[in-house]
Amino acid sequence: MSASGQTRILVLGGGFAGMFAARELRRQLGAHAEIELINDVNYFVFQPLLPEVAAGSISIRDAVSPLRRLLPGVRVRQAQIYDIDLARKVVVIFQGVQRRYVEVGYDHLVLALGQEIDLSRIPGLAAHALTMKALGDAMALRNHVIDKLEHADITTLPEVKRECLTFTVIGGGFSGVETVGEMRDLIFGSLHFYPNIRKDEIRVLLIEFADRLLGELPASLGAYAQSFFAKQGIEVLLKTGVSEATGTAIVTTSGEVIGTRTVVATIGNAPSKMAEKLGLPNERGRIRTERSLRVEGHPEIWALGDAALIPLVDTPSARHDYAPPTAQFAVREARHLARNLRAALDARAPEPFRYKSKGSLASLGAGRGVAEVFGWRLTGFPAWVLWRTYYLSFVPGFATKARIASQWMLDLVLGRSTVQTGNKPPEGTKYLRYRAGDRVFEEGNRADGFYVVKSGRFELTWRDAEGKANRLEIGPDGHFGERALLVEGLRTGTVRAIEDSEVLFVTARDFQRLASTLPPLRDYFGGYLEQAFNLPATAAGQPPRADAG
Amino acid sequence: MSASGQTRILVLGGGFAGMFAARELRRQLGAHAEIELINDVNYFVFQPLLPEVAAGSISIRDAVSPLRRLLPGVRVRQAQIYDIDLARKVVVIFQGVQRRYVEVGYDHLVLALGQEIDLSRIPGLAAHALTMKALGDAMALRNHVIDKLEHADITTLPEVKRECLTFTVIGGGFSGVETVGEMRDLIFGSLHFYPNIRKDEIRVLLIEFADRLLGELPASLGAYAQSFFAKQGIEVLLKTGVSEATGTAIVTTSGEVIGTRTVVATIGNAPSKMAEKLGLPNERGRIRTERSLRVEGHPEIWALGDAALIPLVDTPSARHDYAPPTAQFAVREARHLARNLRAALDARAPEPFRYKSKGSLASLGAGRGVAEVFGWRLTGFPAWVLWRTYYLSFVPGFATKARIASQWMLDLVLGRSTVQTGNKPPEGTKYLRYRAGDRVFEEGNRADGFYVVKSGRFELTWRDAEGKANRLEIGPDGHFGERALLVEGLRTGTVRAIEDSEVLFVTARDFQRLASTLPPLRDYFGGYLEQAFNLPATAAGQPPRADAG
Repeated sequence: MSASGQTRILVLGGGFAGMFAARELRRQLGAHAEIELINDVNYFVFQPLLPEVAAGSISIRDAVSPLRRLLPGVRVRQAQIYDIDLARKVVVIFQGVQRRYVEVGYDHLVLALGQEIDLSRIPGLAAHALTMKALGDAMALRNHVIDKLEHADITTLPEVKRECLTFTVIGGGFSGVETVGEMRDLIFGSLHFYPNIRKDEIRVLLIEFADRLLGELPASLGAYAQSFFAKQGIEVLLKTGVSEATGTAIVTTSGEVIGTRTVVATIGNAPSKMAEKLGLPNERGRIRTERSLRVEGHPEIWALGDAALIPLVDTPSARHDYAPPTAQFAVREARHLARNLRAALDARAPEPFRYKSKGSLASLGAGRGVAEVFGWRLTGFPAWVLWRTYYLSFVPGFATKARIASQWMLDLVLGRSTVQTGNKPPEGTKYLRYRAGDRVFEEGNRADGFYVVKSGRFELTWRDAEGKANRLEIGPDGHFGERALLVEGLRTGTVRAIEDSEVLFVTARDFQRLASTLPPLRDYFGGYLEQAFNLPATAAGQPPRADAG
Repeated sequence: MSASGQTRILVLGGGFAGMFAARELRRQLGAHAEIELINDVNYFVFQPLLPEVAAGSISIRDAVSPLRRLLPGVRVRQAQIYDIDLARKVVVIFQGVQRRYVEVGYDHLVLALGQEIDLSRIPGLAAHALTMKALGDAMALRNHVIDKLEHADITTLPEVKRECLTFTVIGGGFSGVETVGEMRDLIFGSLHFYPNIRKDEIRVLLIEFADRLLGELPASLGAYAQSFFAKQGIEVLLKTGVSEATGTAIVTTSGEVIGTRTVVATIGNAPSKMAEKLGLPNERGRIRTERSLRVEGHPEIWALGDAALIPLVDTPSARHDYAPPTAQFAVREARHLARNLRAALDARAPEPFRYKSKGSLASLGAGRGVAEVFGWRLTGFPAWVLWRTYYLSFVPGFATKARIASQWMLDLVLGRSTVQTGNKPPEGTKYLRYRAGDRVFEEGNRADGFYVVKSGRFELTWRDAEGKANRLEIGPDGHFGERALLVEGLRTGTVRAIEDSEVLFVTARDFQRLASTLPPLRDYFGGYLEQAFNLPATAAGQPPRADAG
């Protein structure tokens, strides 16, 4: 109970499910309840539009709306959720720059944290793939694609050019299909600015493990999408998985190695860590609810949206017996949840959730789509117009609706924009994967970072002052690239992986700062460079401490 | 000469000066020359609009245009410039992900790299101030301001709230005045979404070292700006400099300490490192040219824009004898440079550059401005409309013009958008400054990073298992915050600066990765936490190695 004696309802998550749940609760409960929503960002992301943001057909700020604007009368708190204490009925959060520990109490808790992604099951995928979940992902993909075109236009190395001009999307569901379509439009729509790239040098791939695209739609629409993509020059690989990824290639489950520097993963839904931590019933990565949307055994906890596994029948058995993770269902669930929560407060019995999908739509890019609405099937331009109209009707807020509509019209008249909005590579550390034979760097490259070997084995080759060739192997716990300690240094050696390997990479800036400031590193690297580069310890049996480069 | 026997002209920099120089060269030299432009990003930034991007009154993508679209017939190369070899007439660049070393030859070189910023002369300013030069700066300022409002709305600590709601801009020239005006609009326009923030809690400050604002404009217009700001609730501190900055305060030259978590620095123009490295004549941080825009002693090198010190008379003495660093002049210089370069190729004598400013304009936010045009002075709304129209006329490309105009109209109708576009703090390392007495973190905060002391002194206080208070001092080369090694740990101690101090901060993620992977750190920190936290070495005279927290 709040200070004023109102029931406190806490909604965790600000996506479709959480945002609409807070909205409906506010609407249906009036002054009976105090409603608070906690989310890690202060905006609602209109996720179905992310591929269009990536492609530049709508602008960033029109794919998002401030939660505070969408939720008048709801307390909105931007914070990181750390823990939930079910016994004491408090959610523990960290807020502000100081990451201050704060407890927020509740009488009812609504879990709408969406589904987590885990790419770690495929080696290298988490390190090298782009994703399509958050607003930042869309911007990152856009910048990445344009960066590859810029690079392809100026490189003189055919292999690098080929890798730069091969773009891969993994997963043939809604997100993958829409992403590959929009990405293809972005690439082909930008090509006239790149005089050194020919159309036939571009390769766009969509990889799907099942034997068809768009599993949620009727087979005929999946087939339409596939033949449309074929016409557009998008290669669709069905019955194909990915078994490994690096910065320059993927390996498919059929053993094919595809050289590519752009991999977008729209797969990898993972079990909810929060559900596991709290011991809530969970299945297929989602929190199992009763048909009332209540979590079994916890009358004050509710779940909905992608985070929840909601049965649509009393004895569910197959996949279609559960509510699918779509915006359409999330919005319905939100309304139902608010009604049931109100019933619970009034000590009435909750109603089971039931809803039948009104249809599904997917955009294929280039002004084409596929749709199944009220049993009708549409393809091509009419389906695309329907798709746009449907989603526009969904966008919360008149101002944003008007903006998006005007932007779409402007685009039809003025063409798209090929602008990167920032291409500074991030600082800090990252994990990288290399396959046997891959080159990490070569003599003459700029020394832009330092590498610590986690697994595998590398060979370092260099010439000494007399021109004699040297070779050194570097295994786990070894490191290379210390030359990054020298501001603006160039690599004096070449490093290649001789086994499949993983490294931790540290940017030159951060490595210089740490090695000059932190005593154990200063001791370790003090005098190191002089020894490694000026006095290559070739004789004496003393290894030159895994370096050069 | 290029392979085809054309003269090769290389333009370095893609701002107003470089972009317009490449455009004019292309236009005036036709097939006689091959023109290439090298820039670190692939877009032209319309810098006068950056404060409006920060405030959200125009969208990111409309403040930038792809260089390739603006420069048909010009080769555009996105790369980092590393060095110039004047003797061999090559520019050395790094391109691509590999940072490959590439040499690009030239017959004529046009330097348009703009002016560098150096905030290092004021302690803490480089570490803690936001700037307003690049597109990313505008987005960062916007996100920062909204983040402070979010935090102020939910914090229960009056001091934190006061710091969050105090916004400071340093520098009262065009950039500072426009930034403070737009920032104020963003803040006050967003306030109705923050129920716990009262208008009178907001403090917006503009700090200027001179005795007036807008030094480039007549005194009466500076005075107008000042009185307009007073009405808007913006405090203007004249004859005031800043002597120190931290994450929570600035100290003025009059010794006043102002608690603030937002500091935007529009000051600090620095000498060109490239000019110094190449030994080109330079003065006041700019490359000195002849009146022809040629660099003295280098007939094949030209300079213009903010990077160049261009005399407007034969014997310049005062500041106004040189071309001011404005877009208006840069565009004129570009045209003149192209004409003179053509004359040089035809072995004709170059003409001296002469141009008289047609006027100056500044926006003050809230639909008000000041202007002096052809000797007329305008203030208020008419000046603001003139400002917008003038800059719109400048924006290159019809498509972008139309977009911006439509967006401005939409804003008038629909109101502004209060959306953050991403608030994930960057990973890696950063330097931080603390004043004596400042708290770094306290017991119960989330352990989100690790600190190495560069200078100064800190005290760590904590309670042991028996509740006994402990205290430890940590000086240079000491470190604290090792608890960040524990995933999701909370601070068990409190750290305060007891002198003015500087630290290197490493985010928890990167610290964990490094400490678990890099052998010297693994050795150093192995068993460290157990020792530091489970066995607080209080007796035995053995210090607990500067930690806890």
